[in-house]
Amino acid sequence: MARIVMKFGGTSMAGTERIRNVAMRVKAQVERGDEVAVVVSAMAGETDRLVGFCREASPLADPREYDVVVASGEQVTAGLLAIALQSLGLKARSWLGWQLPVRTSDAHGSARIEDIDTRACLASMAAGEIAVMPGFQGVDAGDRVATLGRGGSDTSAVALAAALKADRCDIYTDVDGVYTTDPRIVPRARKLTLITYEEMLELASVGAKVLQTRSVELAMKEKVRVQVLSSFTVHGNDELPGTLVVDEDEIVEQELIAGVAYNRNEAKVTVVGVPDKPGVVANIFGPLAEANVNVDMIVQNYAQAGGTTDVTFTVPRTELVLSLDVLARSQGLIGYTDVRSDDAVAKISVVGVGMRSHAGVAVTMFKALADRGINIQAITTSEIKVSVLIAEEYTELAVRVLHTAYGLDATT
Amino acid sequence: MARIVMKFGGTSMAGTERIRNVAMRVKAQVERGDEVAVVVSAMAGETDRLVGFCREASPLADPREYDVVVASGEQVTAGLLAIALQSLGLKARSWLGWQLPVRTSDAHGSARIEDIDTRACLASMAAGEIAVMPGFQGVDAGDRVATLGRGGSDTSAVALAAALKADRCDIYTDVDGVYTTDPRIVPRARKLTLITYEEMLELASVGAKVLQTRSVELAMKEKVRVQVLSSFTVHGNDELPGTLVVDEDEIVEQELIAGVAYNRNEAKVTVVGVPDKPGVVANIFGPLAEANVNVDMIVQNYAQAGGTTDVTFTVPRTELVLSLDVLARSQGLIGYTDVRSDDAVAKISVVGVGMRSHAGVAVTMFKALADRGINIQAITTSEIKVSVLIAEEYTELAVRVLHTAYGLDATT
Repeated sequence: MARIVMKFGGTSMAGTERIRNVAMRVKAQVERGDEVAVVVSAMAGETDRLVGFCREASPLADPREYDVVVASGEQVTAGLLAIALQSLGLKARSWLGWQLPVRTSDAHGSARIEDIDTRACLASMAAGEIAVMPGFQGVDAGDRVATLGRGGSDTSAVALAAALKADRCDIYTDVDGVYTTDPRIVPRARKLTLITYEEMLELASVGAKVLQTRSVELAMKEKVRVQVLSSFTVHGNDELPGTLVVDEDEIVEQELIAGVAYNRNEAKVTVVGVPDKPGVVANIFGPLAEANVNVDMIVQNYAQAGGTTDVTFTVPRTELVLSLDVLARSQGLIGYTDVRSDDAVAKISVVGVGMRSHAGVAVTMFKALADRGINIQAITTSEIKVSVLIAEEYTELAVRVLHTAYGLDATT
Repeated sequence: MARIVMKFGGTSMAGTERIRNVAMRVKAQVERGDEVAVVVSAMAGETDRLVGFCREASPLADPREYDVVVASGEQVTAGLLAIALQSLGLKARSWLGWQLPVRTSDAHGSARIEDIDTRACLASMAAGEIAVMPGFQGVDAGDRVATLGRGGSDTSAVALAAALKADRCDIYTDVDGVYTTDPRIVPRARKLTLITYEEMLELASVGAKVLQTRSVELAMKEKVRVQVLSSFTVHGNDELPGTLVVDEDEIVEQELIAGVAYNRNEAKVTVVGVPDKPGVVANIFGPLAEANVNVDMIVQNYAQAGGTTDVTFTVPRTELVLSLDVLARSQGLIGYTDVRSDDAVAKISVVGVGMRSHAGVAVTMFKALADRGINIQAITTSEIKVSVLIAEEYTELAVRVLHTAYGLDATT
């Protein structure tokens, strides 16, 4: 017998027909002899509807009252799933955030789970009752309803799995696992059987939106084994049909590269003719930080004749106008001659914990791109990731080329 | 300074535009110097939507989970009204059923309020915060969400007013008060300024559906002064623009008759040729009670030649088929010769605490109806009500004739 937390997203819970399907999946898990707790999202579209009401009521809605309103969506689906489970002859009950309680920080609208009291829930599960918990919600120290921010139900599921010391947290979603890259670009992309938390974080943050980043961070911290799998396909008797996200230690045969990701949501800014002296870089990025601009890649060129240099960096496309405005206002401080920007860029990343122990990963990337005449505008690296900035029009080509170059293509 | 509970129904809360209007009404009350708590219903149609989900999930939904689902509608409007009040510069917060708590019985789906702990709420109100409470909901002794049954928000409001020792409970609805009769039938119907709890109960139970019956019973028991008034008209500076429902002692000049009500939802059944001996009436109504049929008026004729009698009674129209079925199965037990039924009947009632001390009220009724050739098929009386059963086609005529006969017509 294993203890499993199953989490179903908004698409899986969209309407009573689908909720009945979810109940059947839960039933199948119970019939394997497992002890099951379920975490649910609101019906797809419901949270948007509730957020819309709050905005209409006041653009500056009190976040504590906003949370009272938007937390209701998961309350509805938790009750409905308990009803659907009972109608299949199973014992089940819902546990609202305040009933366990799920204790959170008081950062309403983006609260963090601090503690889940599982005593009552564990007693109920020991008596054969399936626990159904609404995701996304908890209560702060003053017993006010608090929500975790959009997509928070993944985090709720991982936190519950950690608190229950569950053997696994299965996240049911509308994809059947994590792929080596976007299958819409590379038809021969492969579904990964295993991936490490670190790889998942890097892939998620650069565009493969399967799990909410915070939920992966929490799983890594609490060593919760997370499986990503589809809510819409029949899984048969496969033990683990999806992708299992685990600690590096659990993976015996480590692949060099787990996947290739891309991100078209960045824009490039080049500050030209900056005096090449200490403190100038701080003069550029200080005002941007004050304006809450998230700067990503940064490249500083070699100093040119005349003692000036160029500094290139990327920002989210939605923050480009703001960034240019900040720079314009800081010209006196920085002393640049010109600012250029380009929002037709893409960031391509190869991710894999295996590159820690292998040299030459970046070289393979640069060479493969050069062979197709793709110019690299900027480079950043981390321990398990190499990212390059290229012209946006080459995105698909670059992803395909790298997928092949690292031997990720499925054998047909 | 008075302490006022204001209650707004689903039509008043249907959408953020209307919720903003409600917030303005609350603001006006606060600006008179009153201390205010507000009780809200779900948006019109929302409870039906949630009930529909539960029925789709399972026709036999667990009432505890049903309550989790349907209670969410009032949670949403309570949060939204708090937001709308804040956007007008007022201090406000929502108090969910479990937060006060509102303690109820465990009869989920039709629970009764047993106690409201108002300590935290009173402290918040003393600090100038408007309290916003979702109607219809509470928690049972085991901290499971419980709802009061449809229309329960009126009862929530009265219970909160009693617990807060409020000076008045104002129920805002889509009519501007209680009328002497249905203004659609009698254009010269008058809005009552005052009405007693007992009269309100009799008028409500025979068709004038303004307040939920349980809320009036509770108001009577707890001596809560209740005002019924419109949520959609501008009230100007009138102190009490609606109808005040109060204890008899508060009414100095008691009118003989408060109003004329009608009810077209009954059907008449006559059991013919019943042996005129002890125990026969019990043989008729015992099986009907077991089948949960609500029998209303009962008339037993004088014994006829041959030692038999006829028994006539009324039942809700929706229970007529069931009643006839029960009687058919009980023919051996009762020993009747025939059963006749008629669903084209109407019950007309005149209601007024003044009739306690005045003889001749019933005679006025019978004479007025006879003058128009309206035949009376059955009569029942209570201390403050006389009801007659007539052919349905005379309903409007009877109501108009009686309204005039008792001097209720407005002077123009």
